[in-house]
Amino acid sequence: MGGIVEGGRLCFLFLAVVAVDAAFAQCFNKDTPFVRNISNMPQSNFGRGGLSHITVAGALAHGMKEIEVWLQTVPAGTSTPIHRHACEETFVILKGKGTVLLGSSSLKYPGTPAKFPIYPNSTFSIPVDDPHQVWNTDENEDLQFLVAISRPPIKVFMYDDWDMPHTAAKLKFPFFWDEECFHAKDEL
Amino acid sequence: MGGIVEGGRLCFLFLAVVAVDAAFAQCFNKDTPFVRNISNMPQSNFGRGGLSHITVAGALAHGMKEIEVWLQTVPAGTSTPIHRHACEETFVILKGKGTVLLGSSSLKYPGTPAKFPIYPNSTFSIPVDDPHQVWNTDENEDLQFLVAISRPPIKVFMYDDWDMPHTAAKLKFPFFWDEECFHAKDEL
Repeated sequence: MGGIVEGGRLCFLFLAVVAVDAAFAQCFNKDTPFVRNISNMPQSNFGRGGLSHITVAGALAHGMKEIEVWLQTVPAGTSTPIHRHACEETFVILKGKGTVLLGSSSLKYPGTPAKFPIYPNSTFSIPVDDPHQVWNTDENEDLQFLVAISRPPIKVFMYDDWDMPHTAAKLKFPFFWDEECFHAKDEL
Repeated sequence: MGGIVEGGRLCFLFLAVVAVDAAFAQCFNKDTPFVRNISNMPQSNFGRGGLSHITVAGALAHGMKEIEVWLQTVPAGTSTPIHRHACEETFVILKGKGTVLLGSSSLKYPGTPAKFPIYPNSTFSIPVDDPHQVWNTDENEDLQFLVAISRPPIKVFMYDDWDMPHTAAKLKFPFFWDEECFHAKDEL
């Protein structure tokens, strides 16, 4: 039947991503190509261990104004920080499995989070300002997902734990992967 | 090296999508699950032939406010309409190959479009209001991509050809895949 995916593969892509230092960040300029190969984009964990990130389409990296798209990888047994941001965020899980934890934005602190299993080909969206954390619960396999956010560049508030008051969460801006291009922009 | 994709697969997912009629659209309500399986989501070409669509995360379907994410499939030898919309749009090509055509928003009509090849693991973003069209140039394989847009639900202006004035482009709102939930909302 025309136009219908008939039990086929969602995707079957091969990434030959090379570990690169954040110092090789590609910042938006007049030569930024319209079509870009994600395989050639800089990927880094920004010296922090854990979550690794590629800005597929970014405000500072590619001139986006209303949305960004990221490709992120969480190694086995690790997680993102507990954090919130005043933008929407949609995840599409490409491989691996884990848990998304979702706290409250209506209490004074996130509180005991709700927990949801995530798996290949699943999707979920974090409402604006809701504290959340994504865990890779597998012992071996990476957890990898595409992410779309609104209102770039992102301003992240980070929590030490689920009992930390929202008002005590620490702002990190520009966020790690935006730092180099943010500062490069300042210097122009 | 921790957190880095080392020449691995971007994704390796299997979709068991069944052709469903648009009448089975899932509209946002209190029972909409937080984590959803894309494999179980309704996919349709809405009786038009050509482009087939799944709303992965949508305003009317899932309560999104600032972004939407879609999974779309263009059969071999076919294309999207020539169209524009007052929102940003980022594509991530999952499989297949083709061409993206990009017209002008500064002339009175789109004019002769610039043409860019697209391929698996490539990405591009359509600026707000730029007329564009995506072609699957292959003779056999589907062209499939994930799309993120801002300012949902989408308002699409469609052109008959690249010489049609912007002012003559025809508004389609709600767009085909939003129609059922848009009307269901009106009836509440």
